[in-house]
Amino acid sequence: MTTMTYDAHRESVAGRADVEDTPELVAYYGDLARLKTAALWTVANKIEPWQPKSESVPVLWRYRDLREHVLRSVSLVTPEKAGRRVIYLDNPGRREVAAAVGWLYSGLQVMHPGEAASAHAHSTSALRFIMEGRGAYTIVDGHKMTLGVNDFVLTPNGSWHEHGVEADGLPCIWQDGLDIPLVNALEAGFFKVHPDMHQQVAYPVDDSLALWGAPGLRPHDVGWSKPYSPLFKYQWEPTYEALKRLAAASEGSPFDGVLMHYTNPLNGGHVMATIGASMQLLRPGFESKAHRHTGSFLYQVAKGRGYSIINGQRFDWQERDIFCVPSWAWHEHANASATEDACLFCFSDLPVMEKLALYREEALADRGGHQTVLPAA
Amino acid sequence: MTTMTYDAHRESVAGRADVEDTPELVAYYGDLARLKTAALWTVANKIEPWQPKSESVPVLWRYRDLREHVLRSVSLVTPEKAGRRVIYLDNPGRREVAAAVGWLYSGLQVMHPGEAASAHAHSTSALRFIMEGRGAYTIVDGHKMTLGVNDFVLTPNGSWHEHGVEADGLPCIWQDGLDIPLVNALEAGFFKVHPDMHQQVAYPVDDSLALWGAPGLRPHDVGWSKPYSPLFKYQWEPTYEALKRLAAASEGSPFDGVLMHYTNPLNGGHVMATIGASMQLLRPGFESKAHRHTGSFLYQVAKGRGYSIINGQRFDWQERDIFCVPSWAWHEHANASATEDACLFCFSDLPVMEKLALYREEALADRGGHQTVLPAA
Amino acid sequence: MTTMTYDAHRESVAGRADVEDTPELVAYYGDLARLKTAALWTVANKIEPWQPKSESVPVLWRYRDLREHVLRSVSLVTPEKAGRRVIYLDNPGRREVAAAVGWLYSGLQVMHPGEAASAHAHSTSALRFIMEGRGAYTIVDGHKMTLGVNDFVLTPNGSWHEHGVEADGLPCIWQDGLDIPLVNALEAGFFKVHPDMHQQVAYPVDDSLALWGAPGLRPHDVGWSKPYSPLFKYQWEPTYEALKRLAAASEGSPFDGVLMHYTNPLNGGHVMATIGASMQLLRPGFESKAHRHTGSFLYQVAKGRGYSIINGQRFDWQERDIFCVPSWAWHEHANASATEDACLFCFSDLPVMEKLALYREEALADRGGHQTVLPAA
Amino acid sequence: MTTMTYDAHRESVAGRADVEDTPELVAYYGDLARLKTAALWTVANKIEPWQPKSESVPVLWRYRDLREHVLRSVSLVTPEKAGRRVIYLDNPGRREVAAAVGWLYSGLQVMHPGEAASAHAHSTSALRFIMEGRGAYTIVDGHKMTLGVNDFVLTPNGSWHEHGVEADGLPCIWQDGLDIPLVNALEAGFFKVHPDMHQQVAYPVDDSLALWGAPGLRPHDVGWSKPYSPLFKYQWEPTYEALKRLAAASEGSPFDGVLMHYTNPLNGGHVMATIGASMQLLRPGFESKAHRHTGSFLYQVAKGRGYSIINGQRFDWQERDIFCVPSWAWHEHANASATEDACLFCFSDLPVMEKLALYREEALADRGGHQTVLPAA
Repeated sequence: MTTMTYDAHRESVAGRADVEDTPELVAYYGDLARLKTAALWTVANKIEPWQPKSESVPVLWRYRDLREHVLRSVSLVTPEKAGRRVIYLDNPGRREVAAAVGWLYSGLQVMHPGEAASAHAHSTSALRFIMEGRGAYTIVDGHKMTLGVNDFVLTPNGSWHEHGVEADGLPCIWQDGLDIPLVNALEAGFFKVHPDMHQQVAYPVDDSLALWGAPGLRPHDVGWSKPYSPLFKYQWEPTYEALKRLAAASEGSPFDGVLMHYTNPLNGGHVMATIGASMQLLRPGFESKAHRHTGSFLYQVAKGRGYSIINGQRFDWQERDIFCVPSWAWHEHANASATEDACLFCFSDLPVMEKLALYREEALADRGGHQTVLPAA
Repeated sequence: MTTMTYDAHRESVAGRADVEDTPELVAYYGDLARLKTAALWTVANKIEPWQPKSESVPVLWRYRDLREHVLRSVSLVTPEKAGRRVIYLDNPGRREVAAAVGWLYSGLQVMHPGEAASAHAHSTSALRFIMEGRGAYTIVDGHKMTLGVNDFVLTPNGSWHEHGVEADGLPCIWQDGLDIPLVNALEAGFFKVHPDMHQQVAYPVDDSLALWGAPGLRPHDVGWSKPYSPLFKYQWEPTYEALKRLAAASEGSPFDGVLMHYTNPLNGGHVMATIGASMQLLRPGFESKAHRHTGSFLYQVAKGRGYSIINGQRFDWQERDIFCVPSWAWHEHANASATEDACLFCFSDLPVMEKLALYREEALADRGGHQTVLPAA
Repeated sequence: MTTMTYDAHRESVAGRADVEDTPELVAYYGDLARLKTAALWTVANKIEPWQPKSESVPVLWRYRDLREHVLRSVSLVTPEKAGRRVIYLDNPGRREVAAAVGWLYSGLQVMHPGEAASAHAHSTSALRFIMEGRGAYTIVDGHKMTLGVNDFVLTPNGSWHEHGVEADGLPCIWQDGLDIPLVNALEAGFFKVHPDMHQQVAYPVDDSLALWGAPGLRPHDVGWSKPYSPLFKYQWEPTYEALKRLAAASEGSPFDGVLMHYTNPLNGGHVMATIGASMQLLRPGFESKAHRHTGSFLYQVAKGRGYSIINGQRFDWQERDIFCVPSWAWHEHANASATEDACLFCFSDLPVMEKLALYREEALADRGGHQTVLPAA
Repeated sequence: MTTMTYDAHRESVAGRADVEDTPELVAYYGDLARLKTAALWTVANKIEPWQPKSESVPVLWRYRDLREHVLRSVSLVTPEKAGRRVIYLDNPGRREVAAAVGWLYSGLQVMHPGEAASAHAHSTSALRFIMEGRGAYTIVDGHKMTLGVNDFVLTPNGSWHEHGVEADGLPCIWQDGLDIPLVNALEAGFFKVHPDMHQQVAYPVDDSLALWGAPGLRPHDVGWSKPYSPLFKYQWEPTYEALKRLAAASEGSPFDGVLMHYTNPLNGGHVMATIGASMQLLRPGFESKAHRHTGSFLYQVAKGRGYSIINGQRFDWQERDIFCVPSWAWHEHANASATEDACLFCFSDLPVMEKLALYREEALADRGGHQTVLPAA
């Protein structure tokens, strides 16, 4: 017979719980349990930590390892059977909720020319970042958008959306980013399959770019009150050009180099209510200083090669690799090339942190702002 | 030896995952796992449910059951040892995260005249609703507030705060409401003990009421940019008077009777970034219709007696009882008295649902808007 | 024959226009005029002053002087003939636009028991501050409100509204405050007479107070998106109580004593888009320091007696007197009683100044912050 | 001896003032005047019109007429003497306030290579639209911007700014647009000459474009809380490209064709607090329908030729011509070319109308939405 222990979290610090189990107390705890209650001091130090300690572990997913397995899925299951033919990133600390990091889900999806997934809508928010191929498109509430490598597209909370690859395209692989674990945790997940399985394209192709994609301009009639960006599609070329122009005009951040957030042009804020995205350029030879902050971040290498040190662990990355930075983990990034810039795409739950007033940030003060790198495991 | 099963969540619905385990697939799943990945179709139907199904169960905590156990804690532990001497509500579906419902924590705290808890600050948001006693006070960032029964006070994210009972008071019991589970889940919890263990009172007692507690008025110099209400203290008497006036002027809601939200007078919004609160009056004999919505709600009966039907289960309540309504649970409330009104205090994560664009609501269409009550278990 | 002069505004300061008339230039100016153009340097120093110089002059309107004339209007014209039987305040510097100060209109209106003005709507914003009598009421978009002395009510831009006095009341005099001159100047004035001459009362009397008049509370269903406060009616007693509570808790402003702005409870902002209002309490013996700011302000003495010094001119006031402070005029206020507090109601175009980013403020640095008083004219 | 007349504005409409002068009333009016008051019913119908009637008259300023006179100013006055060498547009209905239309000032300024105006700051808001030349630049708070034809730049309220033409440029002519009349009318005008007469360039040239000029992107650190756009400079080429893309994707407005508003990328709103700007494209052969709205609008033809009908009067325009549409004037625009598109730049006080809740709009219902054109005067 096992004896229940209640005093595993004691701390002998003034203001913290420090109560030793006694037979009388243990009996009391049993009484409380029968009333669907418990004594706070048995768990207070555990549930009120001094600072966050993420359940997620830092992980680097190498594309050269993943790619063949993603492609293999094509021969193993049909899109009809699978719903979506996706291999998702399964953080060892977050298996229970199928998260890549924190409350963010991410998967790699493959689609062949002429294939198209059925249309659905959900209360989760999603984005899709193109990794390779040609001819990918997405339809969101009747707006069809064509997508090239390093472009990304929003398929927001509540919108009907579907993905496909044109018959004259090439096999496409993209990264999906969603807040599925968060929305499930918040017990607010709804899912609908489109009654006709596919939408009609109701507008000229890429019309959202024509309406919302010009800098410092908006159409006369806004006609938009939804809690996400009407732009939907964010393209690689103008983003990369913008980063290079910004690099010429601004020092950038010691922690992130030259970083721009993708925005909703109607309010300058994040692209969706729960997920933000950014692209950052690390100049040749750039080594950032280390900092840590709340929020969970998932990076994809859009260009170049380099490494990141996350909680003392070094991860060497190259184009198409994906890695995560858990909440409150120290991290710093470096471009390993002396001649070429490197670019990191990132999506995160930063909007959640900001809206709920939970964003905190700290720079590493010691060792010139750089972490001590731990020996490889 | 156990065989791993991957096809437990199949649904034979177009657009949903429906893939049967085969030896080849199981081997493939093993390969994926070694790369810290997995196949979405093995979990898609589980992580993308058609609609929310809360892990929390409806619970009624009867105060006549709890009270003696709360009082017993006084003789069992000192405040110094316990940190705070609190019995918390432990929803059977949420034991792992110490939540009363959803991601909300709640506890009952007892304090004797002359006692005072030490000051601390945390990134969780808290409120304190007085249930019985006399002489309770709270100090928030140097503002001391006196508190009577059915009053509540905010101790928001980031503020230094402490609780006590005046030496000439009576033993006090109050309900704490916090977002501890949410902030932990979001990996954004910070905790500090005040360096002097107690704050100085830096302003006239109840000054926040003098500055912010007048209807339709604000002081000339706002001097406030924090993400929570500067009013801090919300009193029972003016709230009850306001509900009676509103009841005379307005029909109210078929689902909630005469309900008012506590607000931040600077923006008309919720009192804190993550927790909202309301008080509602059910007229004598009032029986609401049933609806369901996202968000987790914890009620305390401030006045009267009646019952609520939650997902078909009837809970009879009287003054001081506490009960919860989980996300997307059908619920309806009734005042059991034909002559006296009943009042329900409630706090919830409604601000989170609204900010993250996850609030959804549905009225019960059948049976005249009333649930079928299940036989008691 | 008159010779046109163009060089009346020369200043010999670097960066300012300093061009002397020559025959050649005067001929050139004539050519320009024929093309509906002119040379900026002939007017630049005039139209770009170093700082504002108001066209309005400080005026005190003594109620003991005005009252009999206001009452006389009753026997001279009928409300039907007059439209509204109002004597308006005619600032000597603003006769052309019928303004009391700046772009604000104000008049005193008298109405006898049983009288009622017809309903109309206009794009100007209005408020009505009760000066004497009993039984006054106003109906705004079907909401009837009863009004006592020192109460005020909004009849905002676009609303149907009408005023009356109950048959069992006493003759009432009130002050109207409107932005008629501003709206005319902005060429945006519209006026409609109600098709039935009078509205139906569509809600319980004073229902807006029941919905929006409780501190730190709002009804569950907001149902309000108009650009003005849904509260409409602001009462004297709770305002005076609030000022006394604030005076006990806060030092107040050296320039304004204990001042509170009336607010829209939905956003904490001004009561209407173009007109703000405040009530301030001057403690017994209080003498403010002098400052000046942009915006036009019209005061009514709600309680007590004292004086104000405006651009060096002293104005002694007592209950019901009205005086104005023009834009950028130095001003300071004093309570002449050593035992009683004094209260000043004020309405202004502060919302306009703030929204258009034109608010500026300056404290008087010299002579301990007090103006030199000029000898009476 | 002249007899004063008070009943010039009578209307025999229920709800309007209709009081005939009598000797008794005229004597009464005299009494009121001595108290700095007057009877509302003598002016009510005048100051509360049924709808706006603008003091401004529609005017077309032909560039072929103006250009030589603008150039002549160079030989007539030095920039040092003139402050700024500007010929301003003097609406015959607004001479007193030096406005081109409503409360908007506009002038044409000429500057030769190597010339530079001194730096100043004012509480008026300004923009500068380049009409011809090469090498124009503007410096705003240390940010230097180069400007080409059809570009425009903001020099907002409170900013230090100065204009010049590079020594290797060509003579430049541009249109200034300011709210000088409005700010004067609101008695909020301040003016400062820079202590050093010129600013230092403190940032890389055109850095604001690098930070804020990318579509759907913003720099990581915003660092901006001013009430105007940080972008400052809006270029012709990307604007014209954007209009053509929008024309391919959207029908546009029946009243305005394909119109885009210039925005503040941080909030999607107007470029400054008091002045908005837009560019619109009229497709070949396009004839708009007529509407009218509040607000004052000044157009410059950026490309092409056509005509506008304003309150029944036809104005034929070509590139560089300027014309105005007064508040509540009916207006419709047409492109006279069957093959080339036409583009109209416009600035207006639309932000003022919107913020003060005074914007109203009406479509012409009769004659298929087209005005009857009056014979030329």
